[in-house]
Amino acid sequence: MTEANWGISETDVLSTIGDALDRDAEAVLATIIGVEGSAYRRPGAKMLIEDGSGIGSLTAGCLEDEVKGLASEVIEDRKPRIETYDLTGDDDIWGMGMGCNGVITVLLEPLDERYRPVVEKVLNGEDRGVVTVIAGDRPLGERGFYDPNSGFSGDLPGWACEKLTEPTATLTERGATNTMEIETTEGSIEVFVEGIEAPSNLVVVGSGPDVNSVVELAKRVDFRVTVVTFRGALASSDNFPDADAVRATSPTQIHDDIDFDDDTYVVVMTHNFIDDRLALSEFIETPVPYLGLMGPQERFEEMLEDYAEEGITITEDDMNRIYTPIGLNLGGDSPEQIAYSIVAEVLAVANNRIPQHLTERGGPIHERPEMPLNE
Amino acid sequence: MTEANWGISETDVLSTIGDALDRDAEAVLATIIGVEGSAYRRPGAKMLIEDGSGIGSLTAGCLEDEVKGLASEVIEDRKPRIETYDLTGDDDIWGMGMGCNGVITVLLEPLDERYRPVVEKVLNGEDRGVVTVIAGDRPLGERGFYDPNSGFSGDLPGWACEKLTEPTATLTERGATNTMEIETTEGSIEVFVEGIEAPSNLVVVGSGPDVNSVVELAKRVDFRVTVVTFRGALASSDNFPDADAVRATSPTQIHDDIDFDDDTYVVVMTHNFIDDRLALSEFIETPVPYLGLMGPQERFEEMLEDYAEEGITITEDDMNRIYTPIGLNLGGDSPEQIAYSIVAEVLAVANNRIPQHLTERGGPIHERPEMPLNE
Repeated sequence: MTEANWGISETDVLSTIGDALDRDAEAVLATIIGVEGSAYRRPGAKMLIEDGSGIGSLTAGCLEDEVKGLASEVIEDRKPRIETYDLTGDDDIWGMGMGCNGVITVLLEPLDERYRPVVEKVLNGEDRGVVTVIAGDRPLGERGFYDPNSGFSGDLPGWACEKLTEPTATLTERGATNTMEIETTEGSIEVFVEGIEAPSNLVVVGSGPDVNSVVELAKRVDFRVTVVTFRGALASSDNFPDADAVRATSPTQIHDDIDFDDDTYVVVMTHNFIDDRLALSEFIETPVPYLGLMGPQERFEEMLEDYAEEGITITEDDMNRIYTPIGLNLGGDSPEQIAYSIVAEVLAVANNRIPQHLTERGGPIHERPEMPLNE
Repeated sequence: MTEANWGISETDVLSTIGDALDRDAEAVLATIIGVEGSAYRRPGAKMLIEDGSGIGSLTAGCLEDEVKGLASEVIEDRKPRIETYDLTGDDDIWGMGMGCNGVITVLLEPLDERYRPVVEKVLNGEDRGVVTVIAGDRPLGERGFYDPNSGFSGDLPGWACEKLTEPTATLTERGATNTMEIETTEGSIEVFVEGIEAPSNLVVVGSGPDVNSVVELAKRVDFRVTVVTFRGALASSDNFPDADAVRATSPTQIHDDIDFDDDTYVVVMTHNFIDDRLALSEFIETPVPYLGLMGPQERFEEMLEDYAEEGITITEDDMNRIYTPIGLNLGGDSPEQIAYSIVAEVLAVANNRIPQHLTERGGPIHERPEMPLNE
């Protein structure tokens, strides 16, 4: 039951799918397409099955073996199938095993080349939508791929794409999923619409010994991490082994080879007052939603005074995205504990959550504040 | 500046001190005994210096080299010394380097056998107090060791112990520090009083693939982690390599070889309804301050119904220490993200913090809600 590759990140699952395609491997992709009640994971959760072993997770380890057992059939049949597991009964093995009240529907499909562009684009930082026919007048598994810039490609009929474009755009933007029924005079189908978001970017500005803990923890929770140092000598991936990229630059040239978009989160921790001040004033020009600044409140107030003298305006909106002192109030002052509170804060902001106890919150765990999907 | 052992946990620093004592090594122990303003770390932060390299952290990497440079002198002189670093000046190298406004005072002392009991007891789960003379009528570095059960041992004069017993007891219980002046007719001294808390215990009940992420993250933030499984076959440290201990037991025998005290935090994640229900009803009999239960709210409500039928009472206090759904609301549903939110919650509860953004909180970062010390 305990499997090395069970807990890997969504990004690593996608990379593994890419590798399997490169190797032209006979693999099966299993995707949760429906959950009634609660479950450990949400629709869209994926496990790639190759040679009887799985990469990625669908449940807390209870359904994986069952699903893996079907892979060989799926490969023989050369066609997708849908399996539904009812985990609600306390008296049946699943209900007890899952520790949840859900009915989980899984799509199994032979992995094929059609999936390659999704993997490549998402790993390259672009969001994609995948729409799969799961019932109705069109074949099970028929699929459309949605590009926010160019719309649908794939096998879906025009009448379906027409109806699906707007909701798919929304879901893709949010990295959310939904099941929808399309009914037209030309036909009616039920589809699983899946928005696959590229991993969020975390830029850590600094080169001190406290940087690596932030990088390592951020990688665990699936950020794409770039370390930016103003000390060229330290700009080696040997110094920041877990980072996806390491850049040496100067505060004023910081934009040049990094795209600071609205899904990029920035942690400023050079521990150098002037470097921090210069860097922060540059980031304020970008749309990044999070600017975490290491150091006490007084230090930031000194910066604000300097900015005022320099004629640099810090707006109310800027103040709302500047987090200093950085991190959630979790306590502990060891380097690992400080890094933990920083990454916890970035995660909450990136997911648009109020970082309180879930038990205080009520409502479904997986609900997104802006719009409940697939609850 | 980036050093492999810079970021290790307090517990690992203590273990290293123990090792150095066993090897009868010529080592110097550096301890922050005072901070004015803000700094990266609090008083009590320790670095052990041996052969010119340091284990542990005093600052964000700026003072470590400076302090290490003094170690050989301290070993030659065979006596403690106190160094004060003023990091407030923006125009001096420290002020810029530290990124903080603090004045940091460091005690350097040759490591000696007197420290061994502290290390051994704390690593064994007991709290200890250490009182060190830093000025006044008694020699610098003269020291008393406080045992919550038996009081002071060491070199401190009786008149000092008398005055220090009560505050030292309080600080030891809280793992906090303070600097105090004792003035009596017999003499007056200034002392640094340090409460060294044993690491908090986390008991993870479960054996699924999702357990290890919780264990690994909890170790990073310095919990002593015991995995409890009800599946004997899985009770091997091979399955949970980062755990300090792995126990196979049954829900009803769970107390037998684990001490569930008021500094023990419990995460119940067997994903088996009946096992969870039985285990939770046992833990309710213990004083543990945190009972995290994996699974949706509805599942816990089913448990409450069963408890009611069985005549098991869940009090208001119990409800306040039962956290389900478990974890902080950080978003993300991957196994690593779920584990991250669980450990973030345990950390906040263990440190008696409200897990909000520090920037919303105001006040000194390191302030403890119950009583501000050493601010």
